[in-house]
Amino acid sequence: MKKLSILKIGGKVIDNQTELTHILKIFTKIKGPKILVHGGGQKANKLSKQLGIPTNIIEGRRVTNKETLDIATMVYAGLINKQIISQLQKHNTNSLGLTGADLNVIKADKRKVKKHDFGFAGDIKMVNTKVIKMLIKKEIVPVFCAITHDQKGQLLNTNADTIASNLAIALSPFYKVKLIFHFDKKGVLKDAQNEDSVIKKITPKKYLALKNKGIILNGMIPKIDNAFHALDHQVNKVIISGNHSKGTKICL
Amino acid sequence: MKKLSILKIGGKVIDNQTELTHILKIFTKIKGPKILVHGGGQKANKLSKQLGIPTNIIEGRRVTNKETLDIATMVYAGLINKQIISQLQKHNTNSLGLTGADLNVIKADKRKVKKHDFGFAGDIKMVNTKVIKMLIKKEIVPVFCAITHDQKGQLLNTNADTIASNLAIALSPFYKVKLIFHFDKKGVLKDAQNEDSVIKKITPKKYLALKNKGIILNGMIPKIDNAFHALDHQVNKVIISGNHSKGTKICL
Repeated sequence: MKKLSILKIGGKVIDNQTELTHILKIFTKIKGPKILVHGGGQKANKLSKQLGIPTNIIEGRRVTNKETLDIATMVYAGLINKQIISQLQKHNTNSLGLTGADLNVIKADKRKVKKHDFGFAGDIKMVNTKVIKMLIKKEIVPVFCAITHDQKGQLLNTNADTIASNLAIALSPFYKVKLIFHFDKKGVLKDAQNEDSVIKKITPKKYLALKNKGIILNGMIPKIDNAFHALDHQVNKVIISGNHSKGTKICL
Repeated sequence: MKKLSILKIGGKVIDNQTELTHILKIFTKIKGPKILVHGGGQKANKLSKQLGIPTNIIEGRRVTNKETLDIATMVYAGLINKQIISQLQKHNTNSLGLTGADLNVIKADKRKVKKHDFGFAGDIKMVNTKVIKMLIKKEIVPVFCAITHDQKGQLLNTNADTIASNLAIALSPFYKVKLIFHFDKKGVLKDAQNEDSVIKKITPKKYLALKNKGIILNGMIPKIDNAFHALDHQVNKVIISGNHSKGTKICL
């Protein structure tokens, strides 16, 4: 089975030109088939603020109304995606920017209103592996942003970590997939104040212990849950890391 | 030789949801290979105004500074392009949104500073016909926005009419190309006040006469120049038209 690397970049890395250039350069050097997935950084929030659009957050999750969806589409699919593509082309990495709507590559359903209405948030229903395999065969590097669609004419906002792990799972029957979550820390830290306290390896048992001790908390929990979910679904390897570090290996 | 239709949509059609939906539906019904090129409408200007970014125009041409390039990238490559893609997918037209940077499909040079500095404006140097032919062969419909790149990491703003005619010319050795410039009028009008005064056919001789009489003026001149330029370079057919009209045929 051929190897496939899926690199997700997010957090402050997107907003910091030096850090972004650094990780993109590393990405261009990865040999063999590869996919990039990027989040939005702080630019969308900043633009919302400038335009006087209030950010509505329910239980830690952002509500995507019509205005914030337009801003997400502009910033993720427009500005950030195309800046990344032009940087990759500079290094002769033949890349193609994609939302889920392009080539109908990721179809999602608008999240059902239960206790709360999260607006135009999309839950992934289908990854078009056929078209992704075709691109990879043509040595094209797909670059996904955090926008999907419902195939009924509606764009939807979908978390970039979720896109990365769904891609990894969907492509695991065809490739030996290595999934790397890259962010602004060096990995999962034992001590949030100490960048050199990277935990080398996390197993389910260790994860439970670290959660109980309050060492792993907040935004790191869904990230690691995502990682275990991917491993449970035949993804070969999951790493959580940052610049200048081997990061944390998540294993079953 | 296979036929290829290139439809460029622009003007107020982009800003009017009903008109846009109408022309996109017509586009989905065109049989055989096809390409869509879209302009930006008034959304970019509106956003610039909201963000307090001044629009600088020299001799009728907009100057693209860093801020206006970012806005163009957000609005053209993000918002408008992806809304069009999601609409086309709804009608089972398998489309792919592209800037010139994606797949390195259109390479441009930053316009040289002569009398004036137009900033990040791009003059087209290369159309990657190989990759476009590959997409068409896979029954993928490319949808181009008015952003190109220099392959050195810089995105550039390039007029959508120019992109459409450059695509038409570059693809004419491989297809019998029909190029349609679609906008908010029914065609080239004899009387600007009368929507039903569409001129059916314009030859170079007639064009000269109409220009001399002051019937064809302003923004229509570069549009028709572009059309004749395309015909001079083996493009098979050029039409300037609007909704609910056969438009004006430009012929040598």
